[in-house]
Amino acid sequence: MNRPENDDVIGILDSGVGGLTVAKEVMRQLPRETIYYFGDTLRCPYGPRTMSEVRKFTFEIIRFLQQFPLKALLIACNTATAAALEEVRNELSIPVLGVIEPGARAAIKVTRHGQIGVIGTQGTIKSKAYEKALADLHPSLTVHSLACPTLAPLVESGGHHSPRAFEVVAEALKPFQDKQMDTLILGCTHYPLLADLIGQVMGEEVKIISSAEETAAELSTILHHQGLLAQKKKFHRFFTTGCPETFAQIAKDWLGQTVQVEKVELPMINTPLAQKFFVG
Amino acid sequence: MNRPENDDVIGILDSGVGGLTVAKEVMRQLPRETIYYFGDTLRCPYGPRTMSEVRKFTFEIIRFLQQFPLKALLIACNTATAAALEEVRNELSIPVLGVIEPGARAAIKVTRHGQIGVIGTQGTIKSKAYEKALADLHPSLTVHSLACPTLAPLVESGGHHSPRAFEVVAEALKPFQDKQMDTLILGCTHYPLLADLIGQVMGEEVKIISSAEETAAELSTILHHQGLLAQKKKFHRFFTTGCPETFAQIAKDWLGQTVQVEKVELPMINTPLAQKFFVG
Repeated sequence: MNRPENDDVIGILDSGVGGLTVAKEVMRQLPRETIYYFGDTLRCPYGPRTMSEVRKFTFEIIRFLQQFPLKALLIACNTATAAALEEVRNELSIPVLGVIEPGARAAIKVTRHGQIGVIGTQGTIKSKAYEKALADLHPSLTVHSLACPTLAPLVESGGHHSPRAFEVVAEALKPFQDKQMDTLILGCTHYPLLADLIGQVMGEEVKIISSAEETAAELSTILHHQGLLAQKKKFHRFFTTGCPETFAQIAKDWLGQTVQVEKVELPMINTPLAQKFFVG
Repeated sequence: MNRPENDDVIGILDSGVGGLTVAKEVMRQLPRETIYYFGDTLRCPYGPRTMSEVRKFTFEIIRFLQQFPLKALLIACNTATAAALEEVRNELSIPVLGVIEPGARAAIKVTRHGQIGVIGTQGTIKSKAYEKALADLHPSLTVHSLACPTLAPLVESGGHHSPRAFEVVAEALKPFQDKQMDTLILGCTHYPLLADLIGQVMGEEVKIISSAEETAAELSTILHHQGLLAQKKKFHRFFTTGCPETFAQIAKDWLGQTVQVEKVELPMINTPLAQKFFVG
């Protein structure tokens, strides 16, 4: 594969809309970069699926995105990161970032007493991917993990604007009430939309780490060190396997801007690419 | 040059002791890494010197450090970063990090209104290196810069522990009183030792960015992505061109641990390396 060019695009993939929080941070921190975002809304959520199924879906999306000139790929989904990051890195010659390592690294940066909490979907928490990422970097941390299965659905349904949102968040975080921690990683890309409420529940002495912010910052670092920062933004593109109108509505709410969304039917993984790609 | 090994060392260079704040953060965030630190205390400060002289000194230190198996180099001095980073990167095949880009990137990550302040030595502020690094990443920021020539000497003299330190900091930051900003970059490696006082003077709505913390986090990112994180720490080593006892005393105060310091006389840049290196 040829060396990527500065004005090639950033591929971002997610099981659905959650990764838009990461896309938003890339737009904010790297406003000259162009994003091609893929949300596999039709098959969302990935959380309850087997790891091998999630890996298969992830590679299907990558095959689709590879028709474009990519200079980096973000796996903006904790479940897909836990399932497929290493394999994707081994196959692709461009930088591949997941959302777990950046959150882990940022938690280590800000913690003062090495007591770190992680919240995420059941799949992410069960995978112990954050524990592993934290231990790979630092041998003596205390990590408390908690699956919060009600929080992603709350956001997906738009309920994070509702009056009952605080109550749902407080209930979800109850098991953390008696835990000592100074840092909390939001280990699900939906949670930045609940960051203020989570901060209120945890108290101001607990620092909240958004993987979305940190992943965008790491992308900036990696592009910088590879001399691959873009000069000039082109149009972002958004692809979904689900309903483009619903996706566009959520994207407008979350990103604060109107976007065009293209519908895609993914081929079976072994189907020749050319026949099936442009369906939308 | 061969590919570096995971258990090769991190070279850190500085005009003197200031870069110890960066070394401390590397030790904290990457406790398995081994550091070889070089402080050119005899010729400190670099701030008032010409850029070409600073470049020459920087390369002399690099020639010394290159006798060791380095896997990455941190230029932990804002002046040397401004003067020599690009040239050093062009020459070395290992990752080279300065302290300016990580601080700029972190400021972009945390700012909410794009209003960023930078404080540093006269040399750093005059070089406009932060303005350039910020503009390279983001086209629409407002940047306020301020030279604070009294602050590094305050720290060097141990005065950051003294009762008058608050007064000195408040006086230095006076020109920022009527400036709108939500983020302040500590653009000098000495300033993390004054971070609490600077935060008190600026008020809690201004987020303080320590280049030391951010540079260590970027080192973690880069090593991670290159598969170069260490498995097992060896002994750190500290070299100085100045008085080893004074250096050791400051290092003990700042790092909270006793370190062995080795005295080095740097050769003229064209002198054969073998004859002159081990003097201390």
